[in-house]
Amino acid sequence: MVEDMDFVTGVKESDLKEIRDIAGGALDGQEISLTGAVHVIRDMGEITFVILRKSEGLVQCVLEKSDLEAFRLREGMTVKVSGIVNAEMRAPRGFELRLTGLTILSEPAPDTAMPVPIGKYKLNTSLETKLSLRPISLRNIRERAIFKVQEGIVRGFRDFLYSEHFTEIRTPKIVAGNAEGGANVFKLEYFGKRAFLAQSPQFYKQMMVGVYDRVFETAPVFRAEKHNTTRHLNEYTSLDFEMGYIESFHDIMDMETAMLQYVFAFLKKEYAKELAILKVTIPDVSRIPAVRFDEAKRLVSEKYDRKIRNPYDLEPEEEVLIGRYFKEEYDSDFVFVTHYPSKKRPFYAMDDPEDKKFTLSFDLLFKGMEITTGGQRIHTYAEQVKKMEERGMDPADFENYLMIHKHGMPPHGGLGIGLERLTMRLLDEANVRETTMFPRDVTRLEP
Amino acid sequence: MVEDMDFVTGVKESDLKEIRDIAGGALDGQEISLTGAVHVIRDMGEITFVILRKSEGLVQCVLEKSDLEAFRLREGMTVKVSGIVNAEMRAPRGFELRLTGLTILSEPAPDTAMPVPIGKYKLNTSLETKLSLRPISLRNIRERAIFKVQEGIVRGFRDFLYSEHFTEIRTPKIVAGNAEGGANVFKLEYFGKRAFLAQSPQFYKQMMVGVYDRVFETAPVFRAEKHNTTRHLNEYTSLDFEMGYIESFHDIMDMETAMLQYVFAFLKKEYAKELAILKVTIPDVSRIPAVRFDEAKRLVSEKYDRKIRNPYDLEPEEEVLIGRYFKEEYDSDFVFVTHYPSKKRPFYAMDDPEDKKFTLSFDLLFKGMEITTGGQRIHTYAEQVKKMEERGMDPADFENYLMIHKHGMPPHGGLGIGLERLTMRLLDEANVRETTMFPRDVTRLEP
Repeated sequence: MVEDMDFVTGVKESDLKEIRDIAGGALDGQEISLTGAVHVIRDMGEITFVILRKSEGLVQCVLEKSDLEAFRLREGMTVKVSGIVNAEMRAPRGFELRLTGLTILSEPAPDTAMPVPIGKYKLNTSLETKLSLRPISLRNIRERAIFKVQEGIVRGFRDFLYSEHFTEIRTPKIVAGNAEGGANVFKLEYFGKRAFLAQSPQFYKQMMVGVYDRVFETAPVFRAEKHNTTRHLNEYTSLDFEMGYIESFHDIMDMETAMLQYVFAFLKKEYAKELAILKVTIPDVSRIPAVRFDEAKRLVSEKYDRKIRNPYDLEPEEEVLIGRYFKEEYDSDFVFVTHYPSKKRPFYAMDDPEDKKFTLSFDLLFKGMEITTGGQRIHTYAEQVKKMEERGMDPADFENYLMIHKHGMPPHGGLGIGLERLTMRLLDEANVRETTMFPRDVTRLEP
Repeated sequence: MVEDMDFVTGVKESDLKEIRDIAGGALDGQEISLTGAVHVIRDMGEITFVILRKSEGLVQCVLEKSDLEAFRLREGMTVKVSGIVNAEMRAPRGFELRLTGLTILSEPAPDTAMPVPIGKYKLNTSLETKLSLRPISLRNIRERAIFKVQEGIVRGFRDFLYSEHFTEIRTPKIVAGNAEGGANVFKLEYFGKRAFLAQSPQFYKQMMVGVYDRVFETAPVFRAEKHNTTRHLNEYTSLDFEMGYIESFHDIMDMETAMLQYVFAFLKKEYAKELAILKVTIPDVSRIPAVRFDEAKRLVSEKYDRKIRNPYDLEPEEEVLIGRYFKEEYDSDFVFVTHYPSKKRPFYAMDDPEDKKFTLSFDLLFKGMEITTGGQRIHTYAEQVKKMEERGMDPADFENYLMIHKHGMPPHGGLGIGLERLTMRLLDEANVRETTMFPRDVTRLEP
């Protein structure tokens, strides 16, 4: 035994206060201490406002001008301050702090200025500049609110699915084969073998339905697509779920609708502050219209006088018009488009027994943009092998995947949601990079 | 407007029952329906037990032998059954179902047998076989319980950190540089540029401390290590957190200890069933001893009469002995080893101002194995640039990272926990692959 062994027992009480302790008036008139980053210094003549940035928001500190010079305060410093809490309705959260003391905890490099004006409500810089300076530009209150809302979406997604008895899984991102087919896959050298980055957890989530009946994952996926558009990313977060014992693919749409209802209510409750900063209105998802693919094409063709060029494909412009149609006719920001053509869906999609040219599948459009692809999967071995062979695929290449069909799978299906796109649509942003913390595209690999 | 537009409104009520509805006796004597997979068929002479596997556990169904033949039941089928609930203490969860009806929902391929005996308590197959047949072997009740406990660890980790006002972040896995240095990094072709798979979210989580003060991430990391040991993986889940405004690196150990206390209490409460299946005893983490690196080496050298070969390195054997020492002397399964030599820590580690040969850092050992590495980071620009230069690194290569030091960072630090190792130690498994859903190692890339 060592004398005076040091033991760690947990988080110690701190006498530092947080905004949540102060807002509401409980500490008015008292002297308190808190820490924060010097966000903005605002010279008001005799006095100076030093706005501190904390995780929860901003704190207005009031300082005599002479003190400011004494303290040699600069934006980008982090400090510990003491002061008297003073109710002040014009200050953030209804209070200000009349400073009585200040300690500098850290300083930026000498002779540097913030490369973007993070203290403004909206950064008036180009997207490219904002992204190149991401580590700093995210310190802007509006920018960081975006990713709090995104956190809330993921939390809500998980919490809802736990409550529906889904199990969270962790599937590999380095894989031997590619689920979605096609050339849009990143290749990797793996100890002398060829490997890929997973385009989707598709095979693995199906495997895990055989284990837990209902599963989900929230993880990165990788697409080597050369598109450089406002809605494509080469790495994004996919919110996936997959469920067994379904009676039809409608069960999946039911589950997604209930999930969205939960997530949006959760955001209103837990992320009201960020929704207010971003001026977001949460859409109504009490009911979401569902329309067949061919019917949707017909509807917008008629209403907007637009020729159907390819009956088996949906162009982005048509998606926009479908979104518009359902907004105008049903006041819905969302619409399920069902029964996509078999040609356009992967080999594991279940064909509609009533018409094999179509599948038991759907996309969910949000304000005219696809944010979800889902559907029922083939669960019997013979049917899956047959469809592979019809497509010129060799079932021997999919031995690990077909193991589940061979040894029995319940009828099942699921979906994948692009988190950044969902966030983009919810916040009415024009580019998916706005709602991606550190986007990866054809030209951007940093920061 | 379309007549009879179909609207999706949420999850519909189902008359199917789950084990949670039945266990406890509320439905005794009633006829109910449920779905499940035929896990085991047990011929008892006149009657047959058909054990169904559901997400929550097993259901014992009782069938006349003649009926079994009529139904042509086989293991691997999924079914919907009706039956009368009968209290039966010898059956799983205290009830059985006397079948009155059965519908087959899906069938395995004809003439196939389960490749592993998933109906047994413990699969008596080699690890290699188990891993090669993962999609099926995970259907074993004990195997799948492992990953429910793992789910619980991650849920508890997140819930605790949310309660401590951490923000969840999503950082890129395709990166331009490598945080930890060294050659153990997977290379990738990225649209004609050289890219890497992230070995850790280190740079990004530090960047995000400048934004949210406290952040965490639970995501895959990739290490191209050629070690093929019982404790190394080439892809694993890292539970990372990083926190600003720390007073010392002890704050990080305090937070980790409180997190472990929360997680273990959460597991006892929410995952008691799985802990019982796996016969796990949750360790006491009310206090965790902390000992300096050099002191730990001296203690085990003295007690176990072992020469110190290299004062600046800790061999796996020494870790085992340190674990043993603190178990024997303090009855603790955990021990923090602090003040690792600077040589052994990355360039961003903060040196101890009292002795620059050591860092303000720690590892956490659990039953003699490192499961966490953490510490305080350098937060000032000049100090970080100086340490890079001393190591022969070019600060110009780290412009994006150094942006945060240049424009101001609070004193901060954090840690990374290997999820699979933590699970392995908790469940007393001998190989980290046992606690990895689909492990990736030097030779294994499938399934």
